[in-house]
Amino acid sequence: MENKFDAIILGAGPAGYECALYLGERGKSVCLVDKSEENIGGTCLNEGCIPVKSLVESAHLVQRMKEYKDVFNVDFRIEYSNAVKLLEDQKSQLRQGIISRLKRSKVNMIFGKGMLVTNNAVRVDGVDYFADSIVLATGSYPKSLSTLNIDENKIISSSGLLKLKNLPKDILVVGGGYVGCEFASLLNYFGSNVTIVEFLPKIMGVEDDEVSRTLLREFKKRNISVNTDSEIVNVQNKDEKILVNFKNRKSNLVKEALVDIILVSVGRGPNTKDLNLEAINAKTERDYIITENDFSINNSNVYAVGDIIKTPMLANVATREGIFVAKKILGETECVNYELLPRVVFTDPGVGCIGLTEEDLKSKGISYKTYRAFFKGNGKALIMGQNSGFFKVLTSEDEIILGAMFIGPMAYELVHIMAIAMQSKANVTELKNIIYAHPTLSEIIFSALV
Amino acid sequence: MENKFDAIILGAGPAGYECALYLGERGKSVCLVDKSEENIGGTCLNEGCIPVKSLVESAHLVQRMKEYKDVFNVDFRIEYSNAVKLLEDQKSQLRQGIISRLKRSKVNMIFGKGMLVTNNAVRVDGVDYFADSIVLATGSYPKSLSTLNIDENKIISSSGLLKLKNLPKDILVVGGGYVGCEFASLLNYFGSNVTIVEFLPKIMGVEDDEVSRTLLREFKKRNISVNTDSEIVNVQNKDEKILVNFKNRKSNLVKEALVDIILVSVGRGPNTKDLNLEAINAKTERDYIITENDFSINNSNVYAVGDIIKTPMLANVATREGIFVAKKILGETECVNYELLPRVVFTDPGVGCIGLTEEDLKSKGISYKTYRAFFKGNGKALIMGQNSGFFKVLTSEDEIILGAMFIGPMAYELVHIMAIAMQSKANVTELKNIIYAHPTLSEIIFSALV
Repeated sequence: MENKFDAIILGAGPAGYECALYLGERGKSVCLVDKSEENIGGTCLNEGCIPVKSLVESAHLVQRMKEYKDVFNVDFRIEYSNAVKLLEDQKSQLRQGIISRLKRSKVNMIFGKGMLVTNNAVRVDGVDYFADSIVLATGSYPKSLSTLNIDENKIISSSGLLKLKNLPKDILVVGGGYVGCEFASLLNYFGSNVTIVEFLPKIMGVEDDEVSRTLLREFKKRNISVNTDSEIVNVQNKDEKILVNFKNRKSNLVKEALVDIILVSVGRGPNTKDLNLEAINAKTERDYIITENDFSINNSNVYAVGDIIKTPMLANVATREGIFVAKKILGETECVNYELLPRVVFTDPGVGCIGLTEEDLKSKGISYKTYRAFFKGNGKALIMGQNSGFFKVLTSEDEIILGAMFIGPMAYELVHIMAIAMQSKANVTELKNIIYAHPTLSEIIFSALV
Repeated sequence: MENKFDAIILGAGPAGYECALYLGERGKSVCLVDKSEENIGGTCLNEGCIPVKSLVESAHLVQRMKEYKDVFNVDFRIEYSNAVKLLEDQKSQLRQGIISRLKRSKVNMIFGKGMLVTNNAVRVDGVDYFADSIVLATGSYPKSLSTLNIDENKIISSSGLLKLKNLPKDILVVGGGYVGCEFASLLNYFGSNVTIVEFLPKIMGVEDDEVSRTLLREFKKRNISVNTDSEIVNVQNKDEKILVNFKNRKSNLVKEALVDIILVSVGRGPNTKDLNLEAINAKTERDYIITENDFSINNSNVYAVGDIIKTPMLANVATREGIFVAKKILGETECVNYELLPRVVFTDPGVGCIGLTEEDLKSKGISYKTYRAFFKGNGKALIMGQNSGFFKVLTSEDEIILGAMFIGPMAYELVHIMAIAMQSKANVTELKNIIYAHPTLSEIIFSALV
């Protein structure tokens, strides 16, 4: 293998491998660097989106089998370890798919730890490689709390949780954001006793209040203990378990929970410390790399994309940024529009939101109209046995859509109907004109507007 | 009860009850006539969309349990009668919902057989009722073939099939259109041996060839016997079974099937013969009532909507027509745009299409571009274990969307993304600009366009 390439990419997550594929498929010589073959696909494939959604899928099937127990005389024994095995198989299948595509596109893969030497050179385990363009896409790690250090033994991150072979009987989830809520929802379906401790006054902090309240109500129905405005005050081992004390910040009331595992899901931090950023005079802010609008660092031939910059830390955003930079290197143009970014959560009920929330509109002083319908009035949702939740759309006074939120079945797919409506600046009349197929969940849009 | 109303509506299906609700909620005195309380909701609720989709939902769960048998040590015995009981419960729940809404809207319900007397009077079981407006919405019935008369014993319609308490071991489905394909798909999952006999050269006759071929391939994988270009030549009783001979119209090869039940799904005919249409000089064509564009008959105060007119025989179309006429009566305006009508089929894989097919474009001589992606490359579909099928979008040379088709998981929901895209005259760039959430089925749209 030569050690000179058109582009070297550090990090084989969604930003990195999509960038590599785009360049490789168009004849560029590309070198993709990550720690090991098992890291290809990044957090998304290995420790995030994919394995979590695989567990969600299994968990929902468990729940459906419980609901249909009598209809089909179903008898089953939850083997969590088998669900984990299934997710490992699915990960491996998807990873092999990416590796095949990388090979077909003649992308060179080098395994080791990469760092910058100059703006044309990186060093991987002591060997230097050279390129016209360098793309940094090294992703992120799960953060600890100052009071609660992740040891991946009993105090674990989402990565650690996805490595557990057995279901924890009792688990405390620190952080009721998207990730915490997804794990709480799926572990509860598998049969864990789940306690959420959230510092903010509501779960899913930035989301629309009504969505947050609805999810809270559904979680309570499912006997998930949700403690908002709360923080951990003490953690101690007790026999094989952990005794956790947490305090309500308003009432100062202290509660305790005896659990097997503490899952810390309080956000992620960028993997930038070992990149030797000084070599190219890159500026950072709280470890995030500061880039120009085209993702270049100081308008140079070095770019940063994905979780290491200050855009939303999501795989789909990373993918777009990776493709953007690949096109930039090829002299093509692309746009990344963060305003039309669906916010989805794979809880049950699921959440899919886009655009502004009611709270956003109020705080901006924008007057708006609200249209709303509930899944309990939707025939398909009733047939699915999943008729909790609602659809809400917020419009300007002249009925242009400003924001929309689904909480209910398939919310994470339905939100894309509203995404294209907003992208096209559609108004309420245009949304109403469609003769929604029957019986579908999508009909809830018409029900809200009629 | 008075016998004079603002509006009398004959038929309590989706066209009729939605029209009644819209008028009743706005203070009009309304009389809704149907044969019995059990008929409220019409074919859709009682013998069509809703019960079929309830069985589809149960059938898909059965299939998933088979797939996950080892993961969760699932043991189950299919009790078809319990699935039928569940659908009866769901029907009843939805019917009670409609009845409550009708009562809240102060709609008078009269049970009996209604016919026209004049353009201001209808007669129900010998009693005359008067109204300023009359709306005919009497729906349709399943057609027989000249060679195969439905007796609802062993030769049954979709209505008869939905009344079966036990699963037929062997069934022959005459007609491979939407309805025939849905029943074939769900009965096969429950465990029936299914044979389809279709007169045309392909199943789902009017649908895009590639969609039809994909469904055919999936049906064959599932051991559904599909016989296109074929017609029934002989049917005879043999012990408790029926021996059916059917002939390939091209090869003249005759095959036989020994079955328990023959399901005839060759379309529906309008219920107009007993309406005494002569009283208002209504014209008909093959029993369909001819109306003006505003659904009035000869610009009078009598309207016809739903399956009795020549628009697509679908519940969602009927609903819109019912609301259109209610608004017309109230002096409000509404539009019904049949061009943006999703065509969905609840098979597995599911189908959701909108706009023109490749065959339509070719026959019209319109040049077009094709974008395509397969569910086998979609992470969410892989996790769901449902990664057969594809998404295709057809655009004009300047990339305006002319048609789109999904065949795969949740196709019947995903199609609405393309419906709003077409409604808004969105182009490929606008569809590509959305950062689709990950991992979702909707990402297949981006995969096709990138």
